[in-house]
Amino acid sequence: MLEMLKTNQSHQGIYIMSPSSAVADAKVLMRGVKRLEKMGFKVALDRTVLACEQRFAGTDAQRLAAFGRAVKQKLPIVMASRGGYGVTRLLPHLDWASLADSEKRFVGQSDFTAFNLAFLAKTGRISYAGPTACFDFGATKTEPLTTEIFGEVMRGELEILSFESEHADPVDGRGILWGGNLAMMTALIGTPFMPKIKGGILFVEDVGEHPYRIERMLNQLAQAGILGKQKALLLGGFTGYRLAEHDRGYDLNSAIDFIKQSVKIPVIPGLPFGHTPMKVTLPIGAKVGVATEDGVAHIVLDEHLEEI
Amino acid sequence: MLEMLKTNQSHQGIYIMSPSSAVADAKVLMRGVKRLEKMGFKVALDRTVLACEQRFAGTDAQRLAAFGRAVKQKLPIVMASRGGYGVTRLLPHLDWASLADSEKRFVGQSDFTAFNLAFLAKTGRISYAGPTACFDFGATKTEPLTTEIFGEVMRGELEILSFESEHADPVDGRGILWGGNLAMMTALIGTPFMPKIKGGILFVEDVGEHPYRIERMLNQLAQAGILGKQKALLLGGFTGYRLAEHDRGYDLNSAIDFIKQSVKIPVIPGLPFGHTPMKVTLPIGAKVGVATEDGVAHIVLDEHLEEI
Repeated sequence: MLEMLKTNQSHQGIYIMSPSSAVADAKVLMRGVKRLEKMGFKVALDRTVLACEQRFAGTDAQRLAAFGRAVKQKLPIVMASRGGYGVTRLLPHLDWASLADSEKRFVGQSDFTAFNLAFLAKTGRISYAGPTACFDFGATKTEPLTTEIFGEVMRGELEILSFESEHADPVDGRGILWGGNLAMMTALIGTPFMPKIKGGILFVEDVGEHPYRIERMLNQLAQAGILGKQKALLLGGFTGYRLAEHDRGYDLNSAIDFIKQSVKIPVIPGLPFGHTPMKVTLPIGAKVGVATEDGVAHIVLDEHLEEI
Repeated sequence: MLEMLKTNQSHQGIYIMSPSSAVADAKVLMRGVKRLEKMGFKVALDRTVLACEQRFAGTDAQRLAAFGRAVKQKLPIVMASRGGYGVTRLLPHLDWASLADSEKRFVGQSDFTAFNLAFLAKTGRISYAGPTACFDFGATKTEPLTTEIFGEVMRGELEILSFESEHADPVDGRGILWGGNLAMMTALIGTPFMPKIKGGILFVEDVGEHPYRIERMLNQLAQAGILGKQKALLLGGFTGYRLAEHDRGYDLNSAIDFIKQSVKIPVIPGLPFGHTPMKVTLPIGAKVGVATEDGVAHIVLDEHLEEI
């Protein structure tokens, strides 16, 4: 499904912190650490990575302090232990200048989308939508391509990401790659943490949201004038929902069809990204190329190193 | 729980239409019709009130046409058969001028919040958050106060609505009453269908949303600069969710506490409005007074007739 072009090699280190929900099982995190070390990464854990305050990985003050430590320590990659909920509470209080100046590569997904997008809005800098320490590296069985591509992207080796995309609309363009979790993204609309991107390549995914809610969120992006200004919409995984008898045939395709009728935007399904074991690592805020041909879509990442 | 002051009496009629999801059971609707007739209302059914297209009460074109018929017929009240999902799809295509000119009193809740708020944004006119034909009047057992207050408000008789409100913040002010279903409201942020209200009296309710999602939605209203500009936040019912073990004590109160720390706004709990049998009927877009004292909150509606 995926092709990669390698260019160079370099050693890397990962600092793992918890910006969102509490880590449910320390063993899962430790399995993730071991797997990352096996891949050749040096790994350090933030001191409150296992903190717990109600459903959160520590109080807001503790999670903010973790960001402060993450930018001061020496390892170049800062990875979220997991998603959940909690980043949006911190957004007004994060020190964006020091986060940008740190030149760290921040990686996470789901709730972390709020960080990815706010970081882009506030600093114009790139961060990464990608695997997390627990869900991906800590799984009893990991998807080899997920870890492989993560390594390639972190080492700056991945130039082209190609994936099967049935019924993709024809497109050949360039723009800022942005997006992530659809619910987190729509929760930023109207706030100072929503990037103002025109001509972008937007990607979305979600979990546990019925297609009518996915439609409602995409429709908000459309009616807010955001979706129509993008060059392409890439659809990642939409998983973990149940259709009901009263849907009477209404499904995710119905939702996408409605959006395509509302906004003339090329739609590219099949992006291997979501709440699924298989996920690519994507530079949010980087200028990328996107093209489709013969049932295959390509994301050309070659410019992302220049932009960091 | 509720006190009412009656002023006058007049006869009314209700036109029932389906702007959102399909009516699941025609018997429930007919029970609602009978109950409304017993209350003294003349009732007429729109010709596609029972239409069904996938999960919707007919195609978008059919539901739009129903609005067109509703404004042309003679009965003064237009009531939604039920909520669900579907109004947001219609918003860009509704004829706002003819809806405003009709001087109909539109009533509904839940998905209908999208209409209430868009109608206010586009025309400045009042419409009503209140009971629907199926859920409320069609229930096997109705809450007498719900139907009584609906009648009073429709006949322009209700001047003051008072309800128990434990731990209400002190407030005594006037402003535009607006709000409704929190998810539908946040789904309008950034779109042309979101009213721009300053100094308003905002009320919210929701069903089936975990407190962390309620917090996320209120936080979006806060971070978008909307919540902080209101004079008071009235909390209706938040029902139909389940707390999990990993919430570890995090609950709706935690969510509200966080919002109160973020935005200095008086919060008034206990508004009898939501996805619950007991619900008041509220004029969205009307200037009202709000005050609290000794565990009781008052909404003074006396100006709403002038504004229609």
